[in-house]
Amino acid sequence: MRVWQDDRLARVALSRIVEPGHPGFLASVSSIGAVETLQQLADSHPDLAELQGETQARSDGLEPERVLATAARQGIRFVIPTDDEWPTQLADLEHPRVQGRGGVPVGLWVRGPQRLDTLAGSVAVVGARTATGYGGSVAAEIAATVAREGHPIISGAAFGIDQAAHRGALGSDASTVAVLACGADRIYPSAHRDLIEHLAARHAVISEAPPGWSPMRVRFLSRNRLIAALSRGTVVVEAALRSGALNTANWAQQLNRTVMGVPGPVGSAQSQGVHQLIRAGAAHLVTSGPEVLEMVAEAGQHLLEIPRGPETLRDQLSLVDRQVLDAVPVSRGVASDSIARTAGVGPTAVLAVLERLQEVGLVRQEGSGWRLAGLALP
Amino acid sequence: MRVWQDDRLARVALSRIVEPGHPGFLASVSSIGAVETLQQLADSHPDLAELQGETQARSDGLEPERVLATAARQGIRFVIPTDDEWPTQLADLEHPRVQGRGGVPVGLWVRGPQRLDTLAGSVAVVGARTATGYGGSVAAEIAATVAREGHPIISGAAFGIDQAAHRGALGSDASTVAVLACGADRIYPSAHRDLIEHLAARHAVISEAPPGWSPMRVRFLSRNRLIAALSRGTVVVEAALRSGALNTANWAQQLNRTVMGVPGPVGSAQSQGVHQLIRAGAAHLVTSGPEVLEMVAEAGQHLLEIPRGPETLRDQLSLVDRQVLDAVPVSRGVASDSIARTAGVGPTAVLAVLERLQEVGLVRQEGSGWRLAGLALP
Repeated sequence: MRVWQDDRLARVALSRIVEPGHPGFLASVSSIGAVETLQQLADSHPDLAELQGETQARSDGLEPERVLATAARQGIRFVIPTDDEWPTQLADLEHPRVQGRGGVPVGLWVRGPQRLDTLAGSVAVVGARTATGYGGSVAAEIAATVAREGHPIISGAAFGIDQAAHRGALGSDASTVAVLACGADRIYPSAHRDLIEHLAARHAVISEAPPGWSPMRVRFLSRNRLIAALSRGTVVVEAALRSGALNTANWAQQLNRTVMGVPGPVGSAQSQGVHQLIRAGAAHLVTSGPEVLEMVAEAGQHLLEIPRGPETLRDQLSLVDRQVLDAVPVSRGVASDSIARTAGVGPTAVLAVLERLQEVGLVRQEGSGWRLAGLALP
Repeated sequence: MRVWQDDRLARVALSRIVEPGHPGFLASVSSIGAVETLQQLADSHPDLAELQGETQARSDGLEPERVLATAARQGIRFVIPTDDEWPTQLADLEHPRVQGRGGVPVGLWVRGPQRLDTLAGSVAVVGARTATGYGGSVAAEIAATVAREGHPIISGAAFGIDQAAHRGALGSDASTVAVLACGADRIYPSAHRDLIEHLAARHAVISEAPPGWSPMRVRFLSRNRLIAALSRGTVVVEAALRSGALNTANWAQQLNRTVMGVPGPVGSAQSQGVHQLIRAGAAHLVTSGPEVLEMVAEAGQHLLEIPRGPETLRDQLSLVDRQVLDAVPVSRGVASDSIARTAGVGPTAVLAVLERLQEVGLVRQEGSGWRLAGLALP
């Protein structure tokens, strides 16, 4: 097995030899570098023994320069940690708290003009492939609002929520990128050819897997960690129990990113996973794009007013008017003296107030008594 | 003004003289007793000065014995703190942390056979008067499930969620009581005559206000504190911003009761208040009766399994079978050698596994390659 002494070529070789997200292997690259890791593989170093079978066949006839040249012809570049545009937030994948198929990728294959360092403030919007119309429209609204404020939307180009999120951001004429489980030249799902080609033409399609590689379950799991790690926060919009979107949320939580969940009807299977996340304290409940912005924005930006209902006629009353109004019965009328006692107001004063309230339609006379009317009715 | 020396008669008199939930006054009753408070009122004691106007008219001609006798003819008893059935959990209303129209009632007017000490494990289910069909059915399901396990359901007999909660419990042939803002002899809203009469005949209708008193806004607010204080937990099912149900939730929170909220579609105005409660950390998200039971039950009862999706064929596979399955592409087929490399399995072993997976319908051959099939498709 050949060992390339150039860091970029060594990384291309490693990207082609080892599966995305292979934990032990990526830890080795992070600690001793790509060239030295390749050297250890060539030397059949015992630390990498479990990789020997996998690497042997894949390294036969491998020519990294040709891989790069072919990728370049497909409009795909290979971005590595020493490149200016490298998304430095991925360093968190090296943190000891991160378990499973973790580790910083040896590089990212990118098709499209958008630089990866623009993703520092990005927000992931993920969820069920079998989304409901409700979930799709909420995902699109959130993506549109968040992207419009300059936070690129990251998702996985899948059916359902992913698609709605990309389209929401595109509808705002804002940035959105897809991270794929297959090579950046591949289209999966094939029904999303137009969407993925559009993202590649205007923004970016990103993959840890080299061009040509197929989408398979194990690669979706490592792909999910990248969606979580690239973004500042992850919004889960609809996820059944055991949904892949929960795997992304779990990555985001491990990485100390902000995890958010959109609630839905309790009888909807597609909201069950999200409700569990919120119940477990693993996700903040969010109901709109502005609430997502509030959670991912820099301090001092996007803080929302706590929502109140619309101001009512009652809000505009003086304190004594309100005391009297609160003491007027909702059903059959009672005498003004009784209202005066309940309100703690004198019997003469109460009449003046009641007449004022009658003028604005809040109370009315009924026989010899007074009762609530119109807008004041509960 | 006369001063009755008997505690019960003094309390009847006070109940007729002062508004429900009058804070300073109830604090006085708690600290010096009913007879002494009445005495101070009669003496125009400066501590109770603000009550003088209110009390004067109401105490004229008051005869507590006759009030009790009239109530008894209406099937209404007056329960006071020294009675066996007194709900001792109301003592929390005296706690200094409780603000607003707080305080322990001087007594409760009760119409119906159910003893108030049966409410120790009760659960309040409250919410929007203008509930949606969704909210109504969730409220009924929660009330039915919780009541069936021996936790009486407390609500306010109003339109919408209140009604659905009472009916849900009644449908389980279980206990439910209404706390009213008007006298226990009154029917409000009048459309709920059948419901309220049924509760009075089989369970209980409770009020802090004496028989005959009208429902008015100020009494709804003090009534809400009783719903919260009588119950072990309050479930809010749908509440618009500024809904009265949020006032009940606020009381429950002040009283250190468990506050729960049912989520709904984010575009529904009736769920907005509940979502705000959950977002503010003031309510736990619950989606079903069993989840409410888990929160209000004694330790060791009703703890739920964390819900998982249904077990799939994949769950039943051996580790090596799963490794291979995870390495089979979801779209076009790839050769078994390539799958072997991805899975880290030998090229001969992989074929045996692939054939086994084909037999159970999880993969299929396509040309010279293999791809996922049937249930294994994401």
